[in-house]
Amino acid sequence: MKQAEPVSRHYFDWAATAIPDTDTVTGSIPSPELFGNASSKYLEGKKARLALEDARARCALVLGVKPETLYFTSGGTESNAIVLHSLLLRVSKPAFLYSAVEHPSIQNSAGVLKRLGLKAVSIGAEKDGRISAETLGEAMEKLPALRFAAIMAVNNEVGSVMDMPSLSRVIRSKPGAPIHFHSDLVQAAGKIPLDIPLWDLDSASLSAHKLGGPKGIGLLYLKKPLEPLNPGNQERGIRPGTENVPGALSFALCLEKHASAGALKAASKEAEQRMAFFITKLKKINRCILIPQDRNAEDKRFSPWILQMRFKDVPGEVLVRALDSSGIACSTGSACSSSSPERPVLEAMGLDAHARLEGIRISQGWTTNREDFEALTAAIEKALAFL
Amino acid sequence: MKQAEPVSRHYFDWAATAIPDTDTVTGSIPSPELFGNASSKYLEGKKARLALEDARARCALVLGVKPETLYFTSGGTESNAIVLHSLLLRVSKPAFLYSAVEHPSIQNSAGVLKRLGLKAVSIGAEKDGRISAETLGEAMEKLPALRFAAIMAVNNEVGSVMDMPSLSRVIRSKPGAPIHFHSDLVQAAGKIPLDIPLWDLDSASLSAHKLGGPKGIGLLYLKKPLEPLNPGNQERGIRPGTENVPGALSFALCLEKHASAGALKAASKEAEQRMAFFITKLKKINRCILIPQDRNAEDKRFSPWILQMRFKDVPGEVLVRALDSSGIACSTGSACSSSSPERPVLEAMGLDAHARLEGIRISQGWTTNREDFEALTAAIEKALAFL
Repeated sequence: MKQAEPVSRHYFDWAATAIPDTDTVTGSIPSPELFGNASSKYLEGKKARLALEDARARCALVLGVKPETLYFTSGGTESNAIVLHSLLLRVSKPAFLYSAVEHPSIQNSAGVLKRLGLKAVSIGAEKDGRISAETLGEAMEKLPALRFAAIMAVNNEVGSVMDMPSLSRVIRSKPGAPIHFHSDLVQAAGKIPLDIPLWDLDSASLSAHKLGGPKGIGLLYLKKPLEPLNPGNQERGIRPGTENVPGALSFALCLEKHASAGALKAASKEAEQRMAFFITKLKKINRCILIPQDRNAEDKRFSPWILQMRFKDVPGEVLVRALDSSGIACSTGSACSSSSPERPVLEAMGLDAHARLEGIRISQGWTTNREDFEALTAAIEKALAFL
Repeated sequence: MKQAEPVSRHYFDWAATAIPDTDTVTGSIPSPELFGNASSKYLEGKKARLALEDARARCALVLGVKPETLYFTSGGTESNAIVLHSLLLRVSKPAFLYSAVEHPSIQNSAGVLKRLGLKAVSIGAEKDGRISAETLGEAMEKLPALRFAAIMAVNNEVGSVMDMPSLSRVIRSKPGAPIHFHSDLVQAAGKIPLDIPLWDLDSASLSAHKLGGPKGIGLLYLKKPLEPLNPGNQERGIRPGTENVPGALSFALCLEKHASAGALKAASKEAEQRMAFFITKLKKINRCILIPQDRNAEDKRFSPWILQMRFKDVPGEVLVRALDSSGIACSTGSACSSSSPERPVLEAMGLDAHARLEGIRISQGWTTNREDFEALTAAIEKALAFL
């Protein structure tokens, strides 16, 4: 029997995880020189410590923050959890706001904190998946005990880019006790310019594997140290567990390679061009509806790296499977909620249950090219002919 | 100017972190074939998922448990925290016991849980650093609301091996509501035979980097699923965050290589012989006092991989520095508490403040040889001549 030709693959799920860079992941191999425990006080430990602090300083330089504000964690989800769980230790239970389009790691933690007695209120999104400064202001007025707000910079399912300076101004304009402003930057790092100082964030989360690095290493930015639920000796008391030095070095390389101003500008321009090319193609497919419907080819409200769309009468899950068999890797939404049929982000944007089930996401990366998008378009057209 | 000859190094801090095996850490490199998000539903995700489940099955085989009882985490500290933090979600605040010689990750979490209203009581240790079944039974009688107990299998600072079957029998003999029995196996895995089913553990923690693998990957054994404080889609709801597939594969290789019955038996025998050789040498050094004092060359109460000792009138920190300059890497105790001058484990064993400050720990691994111990002995003698 003749073997089937292997189908060439086109990867369109960079928002779930990036194709690793050879050089950045090579950095994640524990080198024989740097295997020591970075908290140990002899030569091997000191070498590991120096490498860890070098990694931290390099990350800080790219992010435009002080090295002592950065803490290595096991990933974006843990970075979010450290900040949210610290609320449990506040003397008076603080009220907190989070956007309705936050990543599952924030939504899930919020659910748990509510059970433990905290008042957590979600801020509704606009039809474009963004959070408006007015909505935020109104929500804040209803919560006088508000001490914490979490708003991601770029949404992971539709790519909406939040107006962080405006949102920050609203949060900072509140008289009385200051509000801790947290932002999940996992989908923003390496995709849009970050400005942690301008946005006046109190804390922020980043993940290496979305930047071409290994899984299992994240960053937490903290303007000021907080009291963690899980204290320890490492990372100046913020995050316990033996320091992952190779992971930290790899993270530094990822940030330098993909989030430094020059690299980001060049890569973003190319991503914009490719996305505009693809959206122009999609506009010619009758059954295609972009999410939101009025998204344009070069729409500045959205990250050019992520697109959510739907095709009339085609369930997203069915199309994802059909595209997979044509060599296309893409998803309906977050891999972190892939076991749930719910689509809370699309619901927050006002899509009805039927439309929500049709949503699919494509996300590109720095090695994606026009041929990939041509293959994707062809695969969609092929699938639609049968669906 | 003539350069100083580089001093050859002898690593004696395997309890802090093991010298990585080339083959197990190579497994931690994200292979281009396995970069996918294991929660994604297309080909790349399915490949990653298969590899992850293969890693889990292989770990389960070595540990003699069912694959579905194992959850990959970011390390031993996180595994401990998942179990302890889940107590916060119990409807009635449970009382819990933990041994006085637990790792900082348990001690620190216990402190936080106390602040949040849980009753946490530490069980005193014997002079040999072990927990007696009688002491445990007496502590249990005083805590009728007891629902949780944490006792490590091998202590990280003195190497005391707990009589896990006896401790388990005491815990299981309590009438009424069952007690969750947790054990930190981080220093036990690959060092003594583990028998999770015989010990009837409800949960257990392991860490790859103590077994020659990369940092940033751990295992949590759960006889039955629990409700985590930080829920998510991954690891069947127990541990959120994108799955670290290369880390999991590397962990499987570490366990197969160092914790399978055959490998462990051979390595332990050699470790026992080397430790007996070293203790015999130490007994000839006047100022040396083993901790505990009655530890013998082939003492079955202790792991042959770890030794705590002190030298009269020599502060441990001073000796560690002197040995470092002679090429010896060792520590006073846990790297996870290296910023604190407290020595709670030695205190629990009844050592006075003066003696506690003198304690130093050496720990060996599978590549340690007799020459290393000869160099260590010579370095100690050299240091003592000046101290």
